[in-house]
Amino acid sequence: MRIKAGDMIKFVMLRHGESVWNKENRFTGWKDVGLSETGRAEAVRAGRALREAGFEFDRAYTSRLKRAIHTLDSVLVEMDCSWLPVTKAWQLNERHYGALTGLNKSETAAKHGEEQVKIWRRSYSTPPPPMSLDDPEHPSRDRRYADVPRQALPSCEALSHTVARVQPYWDQEIAPALRAGQRVLLAAHGNSIRAILKMLENISESDIVELNIPTAIPLEVTLTPDLKFVSRRYIGDEAMIQAAVAAVAQQGKAK
Amino acid sequence: MRIKAGDMIKFVMLRHGESVWNKENRFTGWKDVGLSETGRAEAVRAGRALREAGFEFDRAYTSRLKRAIHTLDSVLVEMDCSWLPVTKAWQLNERHYGALTGLNKSETAAKHGEEQVKIWRRSYSTPPPPMSLDDPEHPSRDRRYADVPRQALPSCEALSHTVARVQPYWDQEIAPALRAGQRVLLAAHGNSIRAILKMLENISESDIVELNIPTAIPLEVTLTPDLKFVSRRYIGDEAMIQAAVAAVAQQGKAK
Repeated sequence: MRIKAGDMIKFVMLRHGESVWNKENRFTGWKDVGLSETGRAEAVRAGRALREAGFEFDRAYTSRLKRAIHTLDSVLVEMDCSWLPVTKAWQLNERHYGALTGLNKSETAAKHGEEQVKIWRRSYSTPPPPMSLDDPEHPSRDRRYADVPRQALPSCEALSHTVARVQPYWDQEIAPALRAGQRVLLAAHGNSIRAILKMLENISESDIVELNIPTAIPLEVTLTPDLKFVSRRYIGDEAMIQAAVAAVAQQGKAK
Repeated sequence: MRIKAGDMIKFVMLRHGESVWNKENRFTGWKDVGLSETGRAEAVRAGRALREAGFEFDRAYTSRLKRAIHTLDSVLVEMDCSWLPVTKAWQLNERHYGALTGLNKSETAAKHGEEQVKIWRRSYSTPPPPMSLDDPEHPSRDRRYADVPRQALPSCEALSHTVARVQPYWDQEIAPALRAGQRVLLAAHGNSIRAILKMLENISESDIVELNIPTAIPLEVTLTPDLKFVSRRYIGDEAMIQAAVAAVAQQGKAK
């Protein structure tokens, strides 16, 4: 069946701007670190790119981590629609890095070898070592997740585990909003965005771990009326997009 | 019945920081003007005062107007709890100033007389002249209110009309959250805050119009377990509070 362009469903995803730990090359995961100066500027730039491209949204989703929330806040300021309803869903959080949380990536690579780090960073289903339940940083000790069933809170995740929590949220919250005609903006993280793309595009387990999501470049996804994947494209200046895609591919290599 | 302090319910209200129209002394109402530099600094200061006083919140409410939303955003940044769920309710908007929206208060006072302006500003039940339904600024033409029944959207309001829309929102949304033990922060406007105080404290129609709410000074309200008013107090440095209360009392006089 040929589908008319007007029937298509579109939404936009946005990875947060650079955080102070992206900058320090540390495993961040659920650690709630803020945007760097660069990250704040990237967020403003993303909002301007969306405004200049004529985008309008009806509602927004983000995670419970401030690097994504503040990126979204800046975008809404630039688009002059801070009044939009915003849902802050833990299911859209970054992948939980377990016991690696806070470690410097280069140091970890030097110690455990680049291959082991690549497995921990990019294996689809092998999680890093878990964070102890006694760790004060464990999500079960954080009041922001007090509404989440304890057994749903991760101690570590591989991308497969991130997909397993993103999928039901997509099905139960985001997909119905899209079907209802809502124009959705989703400000999240490298791995929660990867999880959504894997689901939508049926990307293989080996290919998805090689798909790099640049920071703060809006990604428009086009779906059929029954939410089958059609296409995706980055929004903004072409040279900037290429530079951002190239930069993220360099992350995680031992320096 | 004597009530133990531990049984009390407390919540905090905050009027937005100075907007660019407060500064220009214009009737603002539902016009979506942003914070001035001073207003942004006031919002940061309010967040710090709450943090230093040891406040913690579970959820926040604000209006659909960016001067309140951005004030709240800054407070959440300062308190490091941007992850809090935030509801942006049109019912908490400022009083709608009808056809006066955008007019300079001093000019209006010089033209119509200070008494007439005082009536329009402070009469409990006499609204200003209505905004035309054809006016592009009318709320029925603004997509942010697309979810609101058209007959509920005002063309002008006296404080009595603001009370009439705030009351059901209080009863149906905020009161149940308080009863459930949620610690609530509410970032709103001079007249929506007045409306809540009138309801809670049973303030007379003549007294409420003389009660001035300073910008960006957190106001803690203490209620009994069945939500009867006990007391209120401003949070922050005492000299700053006195200066802010004195400053707001000067507004609206012809200059």
